[in-house]
Amino acid sequence: MSGEVRILLTEKEIPTHWYNIQADMPHLPRPPLHPATGQPVGPDDLKAIFPLGLIAQEVSGERWVEIPEEVREIYRLWRPSPLCRARRLEKALDTPARIYYKYEGVSPAGSHKLNTAVPQAYFNRQEGVMRLTTETGAGQWGVALSQACNFFGMSCTVYMVKVSYEQKPYRRSMMEIFGSTVYASPSDQTAAGRKILAADPGSPGSLGIAISEAVEEAAGREDTNYALGSVLNHVLLHQSVIGLEAREQMARAGHYPDVVIACCGGGSNFGGLAFPFAYDKLVRGAKVRLMAVEPSACPTLTRGEFAYDYGDVAGLTPLLSMYTLGSEFMPPGIHAGGLRYHGDSPLVSQLVHDGIVEARALDQLPTFEAAVLFARSEGTVPAPESAHAIRAAIDEALAAKEAGEARTILFNLSGHGFLDLPSYDAYLSGRLQDYPLPGEALAKSLAHLPQKK
Amino acid sequence: MSGEVRILLTEKEIPTHWYNIQADMPHLPRPPLHPATGQPVGPDDLKAIFPLGLIAQEVSGERWVEIPEEVREIYRLWRPSPLCRARRLEKALDTPARIYYKYEGVSPAGSHKLNTAVPQAYFNRQEGVMRLTTETGAGQWGVALSQACNFFGMSCTVYMVKVSYEQKPYRRSMMEIFGSTVYASPSDQTAAGRKILAADPGSPGSLGIAISEAVEEAAGREDTNYALGSVLNHVLLHQSVIGLEAREQMARAGHYPDVVIACCGGGSNFGGLAFPFAYDKLVRGAKVRLMAVEPSACPTLTRGEFAYDYGDVAGLTPLLSMYTLGSEFMPPGIHAGGLRYHGDSPLVSQLVHDGIVEARALDQLPTFEAAVLFARSEGTVPAPESAHAIRAAIDEALAAKEAGEARTILFNLSGHGFLDLPSYDAYLSGRLQDYPLPGEALAKSLAHLPQKK
Repeated sequence: MSGEVRILLTEKEIPTHWYNIQADMPHLPRPPLHPATGQPVGPDDLKAIFPLGLIAQEVSGERWVEIPEEVREIYRLWRPSPLCRARRLEKALDTPARIYYKYEGVSPAGSHKLNTAVPQAYFNRQEGVMRLTTETGAGQWGVALSQACNFFGMSCTVYMVKVSYEQKPYRRSMMEIFGSTVYASPSDQTAAGRKILAADPGSPGSLGIAISEAVEEAAGREDTNYALGSVLNHVLLHQSVIGLEAREQMARAGHYPDVVIACCGGGSNFGGLAFPFAYDKLVRGAKVRLMAVEPSACPTLTRGEFAYDYGDVAGLTPLLSMYTLGSEFMPPGIHAGGLRYHGDSPLVSQLVHDGIVEARALDQLPTFEAAVLFARSEGTVPAPESAHAIRAAIDEALAAKEAGEARTILFNLSGHGFLDLPSYDAYLSGRLQDYPLPGEALAKSLAHLPQKK
Repeated sequence: MSGEVRILLTEKEIPTHWYNIQADMPHLPRPPLHPATGQPVGPDDLKAIFPLGLIAQEVSGERWVEIPEEVREIYRLWRPSPLCRARRLEKALDTPARIYYKYEGVSPAGSHKLNTAVPQAYFNRQEGVMRLTTETGAGQWGVALSQACNFFGMSCTVYMVKVSYEQKPYRRSMMEIFGSTVYASPSDQTAAGRKILAADPGSPGSLGIAISEAVEEAAGREDTNYALGSVLNHVLLHQSVIGLEAREQMARAGHYPDVVIACCGGGSNFGGLAFPFAYDKLVRGAKVRLMAVEPSACPTLTRGEFAYDYGDVAGLTPLLSMYTLGSEFMPPGIHAGGLRYHGDSPLVSQLVHDGIVEARALDQLPTFEAAVLFARSEGTVPAPESAHAIRAAIDEALAAKEAGEARTILFNLSGHGFLDLPSYDAYLSGRLQDYPLPGEALAKSLAHLPQKK
């Protein structure tokens, strides 16, 4: 075989600026609305839980935002991440397509989440905030923020959905290694948690409840802010390092992608890889398809409504303009925990709405089938979330074979699956299932959207 | 900070030849003896379970052994592995020492074991053997051999120590993802297993029993060979890619190590990193210390006897000339499962005996303390085995600080700890302990060495 398997950049080539797609979108998302007044949220409303540096990024129209030197210094522990040519997978599929993937599992957290955790911790510490709270479901984000706070000498409190806290002790251990305090949510640490526990002492918790607890603690303490691992504009901004590096690496490889694929829950790993290519498409007229892949059990972009909705279950967050299944939608227990979110990034939602990004929903079983084929071909066992991108990439490669065309496919392998092995166990032993979402159930959930109340 | 954090090589710089230290040792290990006859084992004795290609390597006196192109092709999935400068750890220790580590956790198996699993599978398939058996304790080796067999379209049966099979389902899942069949050992698949089960149906198993089962199956089937993950000469030969790359990377970094450190159980990750530097020491007169680090709970090199002993508990393997605690020695349940072996590589043992390699034994708690400090400084959570190398490297860095000298330290981070997080949980919650080995217990075990019987 000729050509490199892994296209590597040097540390000097870590991007110096993040790319802000807000500068180039034909239509910006409508502004977030205050849940009480229904009026656009201003920077002052956010100051109680976010630092000014991140609030400024949230609303910035600047195309390039400088990455602070201290952040780049920490990025050097694992960035630039490799771009890999999946030659063995191509061979297994007998496809003329060229399949490339950007591998974010090399971060010490094991996923792309650390790309934004580090600057979020940094900008808080810049303003003297030495303590953060957050929520986590399966734990990827909690691990990343724990590592980032540790790097800056900050403390971190993580509200972890109780059912995950009990069933996934590995990621809780990771957070504790980095010095974080982890509570099973609902907890007795907050009024929100105590209220739930009083009503239902055996509550398994939910991401919505955990958000309420983390926000309550941050809002109620002068010394504490809150951090979110996806959805918001500044999070997707930070993740653009993925796509900026990938674009440079694809140029070195001598191929430009026909299609760029990533899984999409809150939107951060999709936006991270795809937005620099969206720049090519929007500003330079590149012909590139951008595909966000979600689970058909939680089909926000493909079957949700483009509307204002709450980010959490309790309705405490601002109303965001996005595709949503309704904030009361309870996704079934698929193993891609990071994709179990009723809403989506307003930026990604707007781009889907405007036809710039396409969306696809996939069942669980075909994603695991793809993940096992990928592992057996390339060696790396992927996270179940990333398996959605792999499935879509394989389908594109098979379509290229059908068409007899040497198309170029790029996808994001957002994390490894070392902490998700029980889900493979369940798949291999036939204990996994798909969860088709009946139209009536969806309609019922969408009937509760705020503007319909 | 100036200088790179990660020194990377290109795929073209993957070594073309393995380094065979047998060419340069002042004294070769005494030959293995047949357990029945007490006579030196010849190639014919090994043909029942090993391919000729590996048997030739086992006894080769050639200094450089060519790496087959198909093996290098698979190495490209993760090699060359990075050499990292632990600048943040240096800062945390406030030491003038330069600390470098070679990171083998980037392999899809998560450890250095894949370096030898791939050529072992390759040389078997070269001779038409399409089926391998092996044993595994905690599972690192079983995972690596499963991946390697999968790459070459071979099948693999793994006898996994029952207590690990039940307590560590993650690594079993990894093996099954790659298509291996995994039996809890003792099993009813072999006469050896059935015999143990008949006497003790609740036996938790041991590495010695699992070896007996794997060897029995391989010896009894024409189509099946056996593979071992450490100890033997050809295994250490294959691992020399680690040190060959590291030597080149250290040259790029502009520093030559004063001391090279690796943990040592069967000896393969130590030999892999250290032997190319031993070449410098033996042939070129370099002044470099080579340090093998073992647990004080299983102090083979530091307190064992240099003698002939069996490789397994049942006494079925050839007698090897090595440091040993006695083949009936039962190591306590430390979390560094890969270091729980009564014997050691004959090559490493001979070099220790001849004063070319130094050995050090460490308690469990200080190694976990070092591992947590390393994780908090560098991000990566290490495997408990590798934590022994980290502890020794930190001690060397503190000694350099004491002496006010800018010494250069190189250690092998042989694997990551994603699948070992429960051991960190135990450490952080105060549930771990040290296991001092009383002299009487050791004397009792050593009294059973074959030549004393």
